[in-house]
Amino acid sequence: MTVTSSPMPPAFTNDDFAARMRRVVSAAAENDLAGVIVTPGPDLVWLIGYRPTAITERLTMLVLSPDNDPTLLVPILERPDAEAAEGAGSVSLVDWEDGTDPYEVAGLLLRPDGEFGISDSAWAMHLLGLQRALPRTRYASLTECLPMMRAVKDDNELMRLAAAGAAADSTYGEIVQRHFADRRETEVAADLTDLLREFGHEQVDFTVVGSGPNGAKPHHEAGDRVIEPGDAVVLDFGGLRFGYGSDTTRTVCVGEPTSEIREVHEIVRLAQQAGVDAVRPGVTCQEVDRAARKVIRDAGYGEQFIHRTGHGIGVTTHEPPYMVEGEEQPLVPGMCFSVEPGIYLAGRFGVRIEDIVTVTEDGGRRLNNTNHGLRIVE
Amino acid sequence: MTVTSSPMPPAFTNDDFAARMRRVVSAAAENDLAGVIVTPGPDLVWLIGYRPTAITERLTMLVLSPDNDPTLLVPILERPDAEAAEGAGSVSLVDWEDGTDPYEVAGLLLRPDGEFGISDSAWAMHLLGLQRALPRTRYASLTECLPMMRAVKDDNELMRLAAAGAAADSTYGEIVQRHFADRRETEVAADLTDLLREFGHEQVDFTVVGSGPNGAKPHHEAGDRVIEPGDAVVLDFGGLRFGYGSDTTRTVCVGEPTSEIREVHEIVRLAQQAGVDAVRPGVTCQEVDRAARKVIRDAGYGEQFIHRTGHGIGVTTHEPPYMVEGEEQPLVPGMCFSVEPGIYLAGRFGVRIEDIVTVTEDGGRRLNNTNHGLRIVE
Repeated sequence: MTVTSSPMPPAFTNDDFAARMRRVVSAAAENDLAGVIVTPGPDLVWLIGYRPTAITERLTMLVLSPDNDPTLLVPILERPDAEAAEGAGSVSLVDWEDGTDPYEVAGLLLRPDGEFGISDSAWAMHLLGLQRALPRTRYASLTECLPMMRAVKDDNELMRLAAAGAAADSTYGEIVQRHFADRRETEVAADLTDLLREFGHEQVDFTVVGSGPNGAKPHHEAGDRVIEPGDAVVLDFGGLRFGYGSDTTRTVCVGEPTSEIREVHEIVRLAQQAGVDAVRPGVTCQEVDRAARKVIRDAGYGEQFIHRTGHGIGVTTHEPPYMVEGEEQPLVPGMCFSVEPGIYLAGRFGVRIEDIVTVTEDGGRRLNNTNHGLRIVE
Repeated sequence: MTVTSSPMPPAFTNDDFAARMRRVVSAAAENDLAGVIVTPGPDLVWLIGYRPTAITERLTMLVLSPDNDPTLLVPILERPDAEAAEGAGSVSLVDWEDGTDPYEVAGLLLRPDGEFGISDSAWAMHLLGLQRALPRTRYASLTECLPMMRAVKDDNELMRLAAAGAAADSTYGEIVQRHFADRRETEVAADLTDLLREFGHEQVDFTVVGSGPNGAKPHHEAGDRVIEPGDAVVLDFGGLRFGYGSDTTRTVCVGEPTSEIREVHEIVRLAQQAGVDAVRPGVTCQEVDRAARKVIRDAGYGEQFIHRTGHGIGVTTHEPPYMVEGEEQPLVPGMCFSVEPGIYLAGRFGVRIEDIVTVTEDGGRRLNNTNHGLRIVE
């Protein structure tokens, strides 16, 4: 086994975080927003490198606005952790204590009649608290008002995404040499977890092993089913390496495939290639979806491709831009997203093929590079 | 090592889930709510035993209202997982597809001018989508409008919480026999994780090892610090067993304690006992906080007890009722929560002692039962 030894990317500096915050403030102003409210999760990691120990009912929020310097409101008992965050040097800290109303304190940081962008996954409880404390404020989710906030990756981020992709490739290269027949899906999934870690992932987010009929459920993870000879098996796995995501899918066959599995696999392979071929600056996201979908529809399986073609990836494994009908955002160099068409034959089997692709000046470049053919495993 | 072999509690049945939903519908009606909106997380686990593989930008929500049978809206590609949920037999399923507007579909399930309770941790993005689709609806977080929804535990739930507490006790009994001096906090934390799993936890949520000055940061987890002779070490750990939470804290000392550590520890021990002694039906939550806080304040450390005295526990390790000044909810038999006062001397050391307590007909009963004295470790 060859361990993928991607070079350690340089750490993000206080200047990097400060520059991100300035860009967000500018984008907010251009979109007539009074500011942006960032709660724990991927936005906060990206903006100041802060991951609270747990995301709880206690309000933590970063306020970015043209009116003030970046300010982070934290529960007093988490202040030491916030002070230790990588980008803490670029923000002012304000704390609040149990038994007081955090929304009152938050209200002092917001323009009382402004419209604000807010992290998608901010708790409804917190949004309702803000709406009550400042009844004239309005809110839009960041996916709605600033969807491209984290979408265009810089060189350091691309280096991390490429390293994550390489580790996912190494994982696939190794798993196909293991035994599948007569093992439970959960056992193969455990191997995937171990391999992703071995190849440098610090976090494993999902290890889908969908054998036979389970492969026809796109979000099936891995179950007790014992894999049988003849099964098509969807392997979809990923997590974080150097803080950035991997997400790749290949469908393998245990022993000799039927002609139907071969045919469906080939259609999905061509659809995935068509999706990747459609990627270049200026093309809209929905055109990538259409390119992949057309191949599957023309082959008569349109009804069996029941999800969008892809999603963005960065500090999280699902984020804008989404490759979906209706998304008219044009592609920009540095964007990274999945291209992952599939065909799902309920009760029988499924096939999906997925790579992460980055937009270059003149096209798209895959960050996963293992073979797309139907691989036979034992 | 004696492994705690608590009997496996009986599985929750479809009837159990249906009864919970009926109780929530009644409580909603009593509180003039048109219904309750439940999103993935502890509320959904408790109501129908459904845990989607990941909580994502794709809307999943259960609607409970007096007008209709319980209805679960899911992304079409997660429908098979939802159908397999333990309590799925008691709900109607409705699905939506990528590229369509899920809030439009959701709107058909809600009274257009109603007030709804919504899960605390529902994504802001989803709440904003509902507010936009149905501008005359109003919302309140479940902690605000139905805080006691999951607070009173039935016998099966109490059995699970007691089993989790027993496993936490076994973990403590074992960890104090291990070596502390000259090991990193992270190594002791790894031991705690292994022990919790060994004693039956299926999920470990936190393993705080706060040695010396790190013990003075209440939410510090575990770091690279090498534990030294003479350190006070806060050990706060928990997770889920049979789906229900454990959460216990003891503070130990590596070798002979100073008289100051002894004194502070004794004050916290007496405060914790006073908090537990205050527990009985009809007493308000804030009185439990006051009872513990008074001991610490009278001893001159009031400023160094910087958090509330406790939080509820059930399918999650932080939930209402909160033992905090201002919380006038009276205690009811079957409620379970932590009593966990602490004293934090910045830059030097901290002490916290925590047990889970359940309210009985005539008082409170600890679900953790290890010794509260200052334990000397090596």
